[in-house]
Amino acid sequence: MKTRFIALLTDFGDKDFFVPSLKAVIAGINPEARTIDITHELPSFDIRAGSFILLSCYAYFPEGTVFLAVVDPGVASGRAILLAETRRYFFIAPDNGLLTLPLKSEEIMSLREVTRSRFWLTEGTTTFEARDRMAPVAAWLTHGVSPGEFGPEVRSYKRLKIRQPARTGREIAGAILYQDKFGNLMTNIPSSMLPSAGPSKPEPAMILQLGRTRIARLAASYAELVDDQPFFLVNSQGLIEIAVREGSAAAALGAKPGDPVTIRFKR
Amino acid sequence: MKTRFIALLTDFGDKDFFVPSLKAVIAGINPEARTIDITHELPSFDIRAGSFILLSCYAYFPEGTVFLAVVDPGVASGRAILLAETRRYFFIAPDNGLLTLPLKSEEIMSLREVTRSRFWLTEGTTTFEARDRMAPVAAWLTHGVSPGEFGPEVRSYKRLKIRQPARTGREIAGAILYQDKFGNLMTNIPSSMLPSAGPSKPEPAMILQLGRTRIARLAASYAELVDDQPFFLVNSQGLIEIAVREGSAAAALGAKPGDPVTIRFKR
Amino acid sequence: MKTRFIALLTDFGDKDFFVPSLKAVIAGINPEARTIDITHELPSFDIRAGSFILLSCYAYFPEGTVFLAVVDPGVASGRAILLAETRRYFFIAPDNGLLTLPLKSEEIMSLREVTRSRFWLTEGTTTFEARDRMAPVAAWLTHGVSPGEFGPEVRSYKRLKIRQPARTGREIAGAILYQDKFGNLMTNIPSSMLPSAGPSKPEPAMILQLGRTRIARLAASYAELVDDQPFFLVNSQGLIEIAVREGSAAAALGAKPGDPVTIRFKR
Repeated sequence: MKTRFIALLTDFGDKDFFVPSLKAVIAGINPEARTIDITHELPSFDIRAGSFILLSCYAYFPEGTVFLAVVDPGVASGRAILLAETRRYFFIAPDNGLLTLPLKSEEIMSLREVTRSRFWLTEGTTTFEARDRMAPVAAWLTHGVSPGEFGPEVRSYKRLKIRQPARTGREIAGAILYQDKFGNLMTNIPSSMLPSAGPSKPEPAMILQLGRTRIARLAASYAELVDDQPFFLVNSQGLIEIAVREGSAAAALGAKPGDPVTIRFKR
Repeated sequence: MKTRFIALLTDFGDKDFFVPSLKAVIAGINPEARTIDITHELPSFDIRAGSFILLSCYAYFPEGTVFLAVVDPGVASGRAILLAETRRYFFIAPDNGLLTLPLKSEEIMSLREVTRSRFWLTEGTTTFEARDRMAPVAAWLTHGVSPGEFGPEVRSYKRLKIRQPARTGREIAGAILYQDKFGNLMTNIPSSMLPSAGPSKPEPAMILQLGRTRIARLAASYAELVDDQPFFLVNSQGLIEIAVREGSAAAALGAKPGDPVTIRFKR
Repeated sequence: MKTRFIALLTDFGDKDFFVPSLKAVIAGINPEARTIDITHELPSFDIRAGSFILLSCYAYFPEGTVFLAVVDPGVASGRAILLAETRRYFFIAPDNGLLTLPLKSEEIMSLREVTRSRFWLTEGTTTFEARDRMAPVAAWLTHGVSPGEFGPEVRSYKRLKIRQPARTGREIAGAILYQDKFGNLMTNIPSSMLPSAGPSKPEPAMILQLGRTRIARLAASYAELVDDQPFFLVNSQGLIEIAVREGSAAAALGAKPGDPVTIRFKR
């Protein structure tokens, strides 16, 4: 599986020398490699947000894409660097849970720990392993170097505990998972848990509760309703999402990721 | 007109999975396509700012560039997706006025509504039309697919009302159009409306008024004047712009886009 | 020395039409050129920060990379445009000190002032020299045009005064040089000034003082210490850096670039 694309996800920010250092190393090893930024504006050290953003877009990338994901509070402390090969992709990341969500959806061919220093920029200790160890591995993968060259297979990897929504009788208990740039509040409740699924069949007898706010309006799109009151819809990932037309639901409702959400059915 | 470049302009922000999803889809359809970010940091839903930014840079792109512009408060509500072919470029955007300013300057060869689902990622409803419909059209255009394959011609497109500056006797009434990253305040008054045009001929007998501030200094460059008082100049787009040397005119004057500006001539 | 890569460093921000204008001009002159963003989020007019960021990553880029660096408070005021050819790279920047730090580390082959308008977008005056003069020079360099085509050699270039740390007896006096995205505080004190160098040999008899805070802990990595108290380490550039585990040292200590730092040895 030879490839050209390396997708980058970090919490390094866009103002520092961190991200261009990775791209420089990659360009030096394989000038034909093409980097695509997922984002570098993850909240510092937020492994959970990184895993979610990666889940939200990775499957749209072409087969063979190398995902280089770095949210790494334990850098240089001895945590392993993980290299996962799945049926369609490669993933490189610190072994701290960052790959939990995409790997749950992928068929894993091999899991390895990156240990062989032959491909690294330096054999010595480094506080910038993304530049000195992980970026070179990503770049050499695009040259067709086999995953086995980078280190031995391992049996398991660290996983985040993911809070799953639960249905009890006529109630689903979930939580706000993510707030996007527009202030939309994505929940962890998939539309498949609703009694009659699909955005094409609105369900007036359903009430979503978030804090003290009760929302009884399920819309088919962000622009269907014409006032400025909150509503919910099934978003592009199949999750229930709370929104306000041309406004920020997060600001309007004073809500944030982690807050509990319940959906109750009237019948 | 076959091409490689796809220029992206959105209000999606740089922290979410939205922009990389577009790039992933494009890379999957045409790995040789090259995306160039115009910006993704437009204020949410600000069609007017998007149209202005697009106007400010599109003509510098190589012939054949596909502009994929998405500021889309009406996503999934039935508003059309517009595909415009001009003598030099392709433009894809929701039909909500976003293309008003560049299309005013271009010679339009055809206007179409994107309706044929053959090239879309999904035939079903979607709340992320930029990823599922618009990005594929952009990518297939770079493969040389003819605009006619994407949908039927339409006669007109939605245009924003653009406030034009007006001259009455010795006075031009205009407005602040845009505040850039430095705090410079761009007006909608072109230098061609001034009695003696051109930055090379300063015009001391001219007074610009913005709120209570009266500015009598027309400079040839941002660095010509040596104090920290506001001045105005003809900017790189031929528009009158208010600036402060190595400072923010917006902060110094408490002004913002939309505020009225007048220029009076003394003779 | 023919090349493909152009690395961009500016204070233009990511929300305006400035950066895409540069990329559009480059794409038009050489569609095979590949731009890599270092950052565009430098504080406006901060030549010193720009020089430091450039120093921090330039040497990782492939041989032949053209660095186009623009922090330019004096644009259009007659300051020269500098083109430096070193053994490995090209650098284009306003001659205002921005290249001070990388050029100190490079072997300079030629220094030129960009004066020949033949390659510019316009011969006339312009307030956007990065787009109209510098970007074309960068793009034509990637076509293999010789530096001598752009203007005559000059003998010197403007340099920033760089405050150097000083050792007196058992004390090193330095300063905070830079605050990164995580709030880590980089000092200008290289680890080579410490009595026993290297992160592998902690030195408990060493005290770093920043304001009223005294820090006696030298760590080997950001994750070595387990509490939330500040410590210092040797960072990826070989400089002493103050950090807090999974937190912001800048916020915890109320410190910022420019603040004095001293390190005292007990024996």
